[in-house]
Amino acid sequence: MAESTIVLYDIPFAEPNICWSPNTWKTRCVLNYEGLAYRTEWIEYPDIEALCIKIGAAPTGVKDDGTTPEYTLPVIHDPFTGQTISDSFDIAIYLHNTYPDTPRLFPPGTRALQSAFVQYVNFRVQTRLGQFLRPAVFHKLPLGKSQEYFRRTREALYNVKIEEWAPTGEDRVQKWKGVEMDLVLLDKHYKLAKEEVGGDFIYGVDPTFGDFALASIFQWCKQGFGVESKEWMNILTWQNGRWRKFIESLDRYTLIV
Amino acid sequence: MAESTIVLYDIPFAEPNICWSPNTWKTRCVLNYEGLAYRTEWIEYPDIEALCIKIGAAPTGVKDDGTTPEYTLPVIHDPFTGQTISDSFDIAIYLHNTYPDTPRLFPPGTRALQSAFVQYVNFRVQTRLGQFLRPAVFHKLPLGKSQEYFRRTREALYNVKIEEWAPTGEDRVQKWKGVEMDLVLLDKHYKLAKEEVGGDFIYGVDPTFGDFALASIFQWCKQGFGVESKEWMNILTWQNGRWRKFIESLDRYTLIV
Repeated sequence: MAESTIVLYDIPFAEPNICWSPNTWKTRCVLNYEGLAYRTEWIEYPDIEALCIKIGAAPTGVKDDGTTPEYTLPVIHDPFTGQTISDSFDIAIYLHNTYPDTPRLFPPGTRALQSAFVQYVNFRVQTRLGQFLRPAVFHKLPLGKSQEYFRRTREALYNVKIEEWAPTGEDRVQKWKGVEMDLVLLDKHYKLAKEEVGGDFIYGVDPTFGDFALASIFQWCKQGFGVESKEWMNILTWQNGRWRKFIESLDRYTLIV
Repeated sequence: MAESTIVLYDIPFAEPNICWSPNTWKTRCVLNYEGLAYRTEWIEYPDIEALCIKIGAAPTGVKDDGTTPEYTLPVIHDPFTGQTISDSFDIAIYLHNTYPDTPRLFPPGTRALQSAFVQYVNFRVQTRLGQFLRPAVFHKLPLGKSQEYFRRTREALYNVKIEEWAPTGEDRVQKWKGVEMDLVLLDKHYKLAKEEVGGDFIYGVDPTFGDFALASIFQWCKQGFGVESKEWMNILTWQNGRWRKFIESLDRYTLIV
């Protein structure tokens, strides 16, 4: 059957219809914000490489050996142009260029600064958070090949057993405080935008790609820790609900279809 | 004598009239780019705090204990407004607002993204470079109180002896290769700007504050390693002279007065 809508390839939890990866969330937010019809196809971790090779999705990097191509999600396939695109930033640029009548996520001239902002958010927030979140994510992946793959690749990459990854006791308290402080520092940039042009986003009154990169990290927290978790409740209270407001202001773009 | 020009407070090497700090370089580049007259006053490391308190320069952070104010350079004193401003970003915003007829380093709406870009450059490039540069800088500081202060504070902060800081042997080769790769990754953002709007800077054809933050890191390399050093010669050749061209394109804004 020929596709009649954009396909977003995403990575499943055991529980169906949960998007949790901060990378696939970026693409999902972009599709939702731009009002483009799409459907999701869920691909378990160890099946990503074969899928990408089959549908002609470019690798997004190389593995630790420096030469073997690495394939990651998100990937989209657009049946209207026949194109298959990988990497959340490249997908956003592709959609921006291909569908110029949609709401704009890249104000003119800001692509380079937006791409740097996404990396900055990773350095500033994702690094420390990952220590807490990756073990939580592991337990929510489908049993069997997904968990086996995640354990094998992450334990090799980060040189730590899944079970020993998350900080515990007083160390956890201090490092979790560190996550809060990372966000306080990130907020300083948002304050500058507010002072200069008003609005709650990094470029002013409308969200841009960079804002969705941050929103995607919050979605990773929400689904990784769980909506009812102490950690998620905690995040919603930080800085008098400053991030709760940010999350809620973008909530309408978090539909999963 | 009443001042008749802006004063920039900077940190000296033993050799006179050398600006080497990536932070004071930012302010110097801004003053030069905006064509504002200024003179430099050189303040040795252990004298910075007393100076700041005396001239009413605000602290830029707190020390490790979380409460004691920390005073840093650059600081400027502007006799035309009577203001004393600290922190290179805040100084740039102050000059932008106070002297609106000067060339603009903050295109409208980009202050938040520029401030994030500066931090991103630090994460991406400065972190690894520091391991090489700080020991080199130490040996060029004035003998006596400057070196003693730098050794005491940095050894406490980074928990390493100055003499054991710089990587050696094969480790040095690998980490130096890492510095080159950090810059390759940074260059990807510049390529996006070039593709979108043309020009060699992060927002297009004219330099912005973010570009001068990067240029200041290169000045730190140039003066810290030394103009004749293998490391500096090396940097100038990376990516077929890609960074040499960048450095040269901003060279006219590196005057020291």
